[in-house]
This record gives sequence, structure tokens and C-alpha cells, in this order.
Amino acid sequence: MKTHTLLMPLDMHLHLRDGIMLENIAPLSAYSFSGALVMPNLVPPVTTKQNIIAYKKRILASVANDYFEVYMTLFYQNYSKEFLEDVEDEILAVKLYPAGITTNSKEGVKSFDIEAMRPTLEAMSELNIPLCVHGESHGFVMDRETEFMSIYEQLAENFPNLKIIMEHITTKEAVQMLERYENLYATITLHHLLLTLDDVVGGKMQPHLFCKPIAKRPQDREALLQVALNAHPKVMFGSDSAPHPQHEKESSGCAAGIFTAPIAIQMLCELFDKFDALENLQDFISDNAQRIYGICPEFKEVRLSNTPFTIPKIYNTVVPMYANETIGWSIDDIS
Amino acid sequence: MKTHTLLMPLDMHLHLRDGIMLENIAPLSAYSFSGALVMPNLVPPVTTKQNIIAYKKRILASVANDYFEVYMTLFYQNYSKEFLEDVEDEILAVKLYPAGITTNSKEGVKSFDIEAMRPTLEAMSELNIPLCVHGESHGFVMDRETEFMSIYEQLAENFPNLKIIMEHITTKEAVQMLERYENLYATITLHHLLLTLDDVVGGKMQPHLFCKPIAKRPQDREALLQVALNAHPKVMFGSDSAPHPQHEKESSGCAAGIFTAPIAIQMLCELFDKFDALENLQDFISDNAQRIYGICPEFKEVRLSNTPFTIPKIYNTVVPMYANETIGWSIDDIS
Repeated sequence: MKTHTLLMPLDMHLHLRDGIMLENIAPLSAYSFSGALVMPNLVPPVTTKQNIIAYKKRILASVANDYFEVYMTLFYQNYSKEFLEDVEDEILAVKLYPAGITTNSKEGVKSFDIEAMRPTLEAMSELNIPLCVHGESHGFVMDRETEFMSIYEQLAENFPNLKIIMEHITTKEAVQMLERYENLYATITLHHLLLTLDDVVGGKMQPHLFCKPIAKRPQDREALLQVALNAHPKVMFGSDSAPHPQHEKESSGCAAGIFTAPIAIQMLCELFDKFDALENLQDFISDNAQRIYGICPEFKEVRLSNTPFTIPKIYNTVVPMYANETIGWSIDDIS
Repeated sequence: MKTHTLLMPLDMHLHLRDGIMLENIAPLSAYSFSGALVMPNLVPPVTTKQNIIAYKKRILASVANDYFEVYMTLFYQNYSKEFLEDVEDEILAVKLYPAGITTNSKEGVKSFDIEAMRPTLEAMSELNIPLCVHGESHGFVMDRETEFMSIYEQLAENFPNLKIIMEHITTKEAVQMLERYENLYATITLHHLLLTLDDVVGGKMQPHLFCKPIAKRPQDREALLQVALNAHPKVMFGSDSAPHPQHEKESSGCAAGIFTAPIAIQMLCELFDKFDALENLQDFISDNAQRIYGICPEFKEVRLSNTPFTIPKIYNTVVPMYANETIGWSIDDIS
């Protein structure tokens, strides 16, 4: 039997939703992860200090029995420096969505007018608040991320002291950007390390593998795997785990989002083991994020072994990725 | 009010299934179309004279009240000339599927070994039996049709007297092939004139717009529109209307196929009218097919007008494309 231990695993891109869904799913992340960066795309989005504090309180209440560090994000809009100074202790980052690009993003940025954004982004640079970006254009679905590269370039060049995190990257073009600008970082999901568009619509259509940005070509997945498996120092794990009730997924007009939170650590172990890269998983799933964000989560140790684990068919109302399939690694215990 | 009359509309690529589904849907095609080329991908596929005759009989029984010409196809396998001579009066064409490429195709061609296929294809050339081809490789879903172009080239070059119909083409590369080989023809569906991948997975995921081959890029749709709207003489309408019960579409693991048979004529009128090309629809929907296949369906006249028509939410168990949406053209009467 092979075993592996991870310390303080972090999920640097997580959707916890609100209300009953929050109560159902937050404990699943809190069980195995040490902490998570929580996305602000509620309805309405999280744009005030009061809302940040209240949302964090609801999250903590839902995970009362587990130690879990909740890192909050503010939904990007143009904000004054005074406002950012007032909220900076409550947040770890600001999350930017192009308007209408994904679930609950209609209050996002309508046009990337750098000058209009300059006061906010300069204030963030001065206050050392990272900017997390959902980087997609409104173009053809397979081109959206690559079309957004010019905006990453503008942001990186205009705000050299701003830490910019390209969230849930899916293309080789985004991977290449990591080398071009010192201040660009990235999160990568579990599912984009595993899937291509073939898995989504190449055989039968798989609503539980449908997400935004959509999974791309084999060459793109290969580029993502290279930097993840080698624990590129600018790359962090962010699950983008995004739950929807089963009836919203298996319907005409299926919502975007793949639910991986409760299985991500086990599947990452399996994946890294398969490529003989288990020793790099600690950097990918925790140490890089600690260094990039300057965070020190409390001690948590997750011990895994290559014992088969059958993924549940459903967690409450939410069908996970690879439901009912058996994977090779499982969590033995956590302390 | 604008009106338009179509004579003997033909659907040169239709899935009628069998059993209760056949009984439910065949009358919808028989109502508005003058005839259809019926695909042989039943389980088991239609590979014997007895099965062809029996299936045709079941189809005719299900449309007893309408005049409807049923053109049969034989599922491609390597056949002797004697066999083809024996069945030629029962079929209009032979349909070739790569094995496993779409619904009920696992008995199809496993490798395109031209020499192994030569006796069959030479016999078909001599007997003047057209070959209809589902032209997709087993590669990445967006590349499958373009990767198949080299096989079309081999077929067209090796069998210059064989009429080869590239079924339900979806790419500009396939359109370009029409000019390169005299013996290559094509069918185009309604949905590939309307959709791109953006409509399928660019917003919410739309199972009722999911088909094989999958809808491609805007430039591909533009190329298809050009030849359809201009009634290119080598291009015919074939709906590829492919019904699945609602529960098989709105589920984890959605079957491929879009159901358009009952709305295709109305939507084609709307589309051709929008591009000021109504006068070319007769060629696209009937005259080209009559000339290419050498068929003379009995007289049928379909009179339409630009009167709004709300597409039903469901036809029995099958959800049509654009269910519950209102389109601009409807059928007034048929004689």
C-alpha cells in the first residue's frame, strides 16, 4: 500500500453559494481542506464590507465542527481607495468577472477601460490586494480565454505591482503568459487537468462535466498538466467547484459548473501518482498559495492511501464529477 | 402577408427509428414532406433484403394516411455484387458509418481499408448505387470532420463513378471538397445552418441542440449558409432529424440528435426569407435531390406564409429544436 500526506491543503477558488446549498456543501470542503478562497458571485454580488462580514459569518456557521480558514473575496467594481482600505482586513483578494460571462456575473465589468479602472487597481497595488480574474471574452466559446490574453497583458503592464491571478486557466496560451509577466499567476482546477471538450460533448453529452471556461483541446490539457505536475511556482490549485442541484444540471438549459470539492484531494493524489509526481502535490495544493498570497493556515494533516474509493452518486442534491466511479486513492484520516 | 409554395419537399437524411417511436414521429415527416431517405442505423442495423422490406413496410404502416415516398438505405458493410444486385430495387443508397461514431453505429466500418472495400464500392459504382457517408474520424470532436477529408479524397479518387454523398456536413473544409471532386455531393441539415458550438455550450448547455457531428465555428456555419442559400447544385437538404425521448436528452449522458422533422420546412422558409433567398429553397429542398438521385416523387404542394407559428413544447415524448419558441413562417395547407 502506498500512502501520502498533505499539509494544509488549500482550495484557492471555491464557490460555496448561500442558504441551504451553503449549509450542505461547505462542510465537505471544510472536512478535507485547510482553507479556501471563496468566490463572491452571489445574487446580489458581495460588494460591501457588511456583506463580506455577514457572508463569512454564514460560512463559518455552516462549518462549525471543522477547522477551516475562510478567505473572502470582494466582487470587483470600481472602488475608492478609502473603501478598499476599509475592507482590506476582511478580504484576501478582489475577484473580477466580465459582465455576464458565467453564473451570477451580470454585475461584472462591462468594458475593460484601463483608465476607468486605474484608480481602483492602483489602490489595490498600493494596498497589496491581489486581483483574481475570470479571463474570458464574449467571443466563440473555444476562443474566449485566448482572446482575453491581450487584457491580461494590459493589466500586467499597466499595474506591475498588482498581483494578478488568472483563474481556472484552460489553455496553453494562458500557461505561456506565466513566463511573460512577473506579476501574473494562475489557478488550475482538477477538472481541467482531466478533461477535454471530448469528455463533455465528444461522446454522449455530459452535463456534470460542463463548466466555464469549457474544457479545451488535448494540447491545452497537456500544457496545464505540465505546470501542475511540476508544481510551477506561480501555479496554485483552485477547484472552481461549483454546485448546482441535480435538476438544474440534468435539464434543458444546464447550468455551468462541476462539483469536485469532496473528491478533489483524492483525485489529485491519484493523478499526481499516475504521473509519478506525488512529491510535487504539496506545492501545488498548498505551499505555492501560501507564498503567493502570504497566508499561514493553521496546521492540518491529511493522510491518504491508494485504497479504492467509490465516489458517491450524489451529495445531498448535487451530483459530483465522476459520480459512482471508483478511483484509486482515498483519505484515511485527518488531524 | 408573404406566401411561398414548395413542391415535393424531400428530406434526404432522416432517422425514423422503429416501434412506438416510429409510429409517433413518421407521420410528422409524412405530413409535410413528399419523401425521405431513411437511415438504416437500427439495432441491429438494416443489412438484409428481408430487413429492408420489413422496415419499409413498418414505416408505410405508420404513415398510412399520408402520401410519403420512403427511400430506403442499406447499412454499409462489405457486400458481394450478387447481394447488391438482389437488393438494388429496394434501396436508394448505401449508408456508411465509421464504427461507433454515432447512435447505433457500432456495426460500422472499423478501418478504411480501400482495397478491402473495393469489391463492394466497385459493384455499387456499376449498379449506380450512391454511397452516403457519415464522415467523421475518431479524433478530437471539433476536428473529426476535417480529419475525415482525406478519406473522402481516397474514396472520390478510387471510385470516380461512385456518387458519394457527404452527409450532414458541418465545416468549410467539407464545403470546399464539393469543388474538388465531381463525384462528391453533400446534405446539409437545418440545425447546422443555424447553430454554432456557442449555441450548444456557449451559454447554458443545451441538450436539445446537441448532435453529431457537433455544430462548429461561425466561419463553418457561414460556409454552409453560402452553398445552401445559393442552392449549390451538389447540395441537398437532409434534416438528420433524430428523435430521442425527453428523458434520454435531459439526463446525465445525453444522447446525440436534434429533432427538427415537423418544423424544418417552416424554419427553412424563415431562414431563406431572412437572407432574401426564398427563390432558391425549391432547389435546396427538392430539385437538387431529384436530379442527383434520379428520383421523381409524386406531386405534393406545400403552401406557407409568414404567419407566426409557436413550436410545440413536445411532440409526444420528443422535444423539438426551439421548443416553445415562435418562428415567423407556418404551413397554411398541403395538397
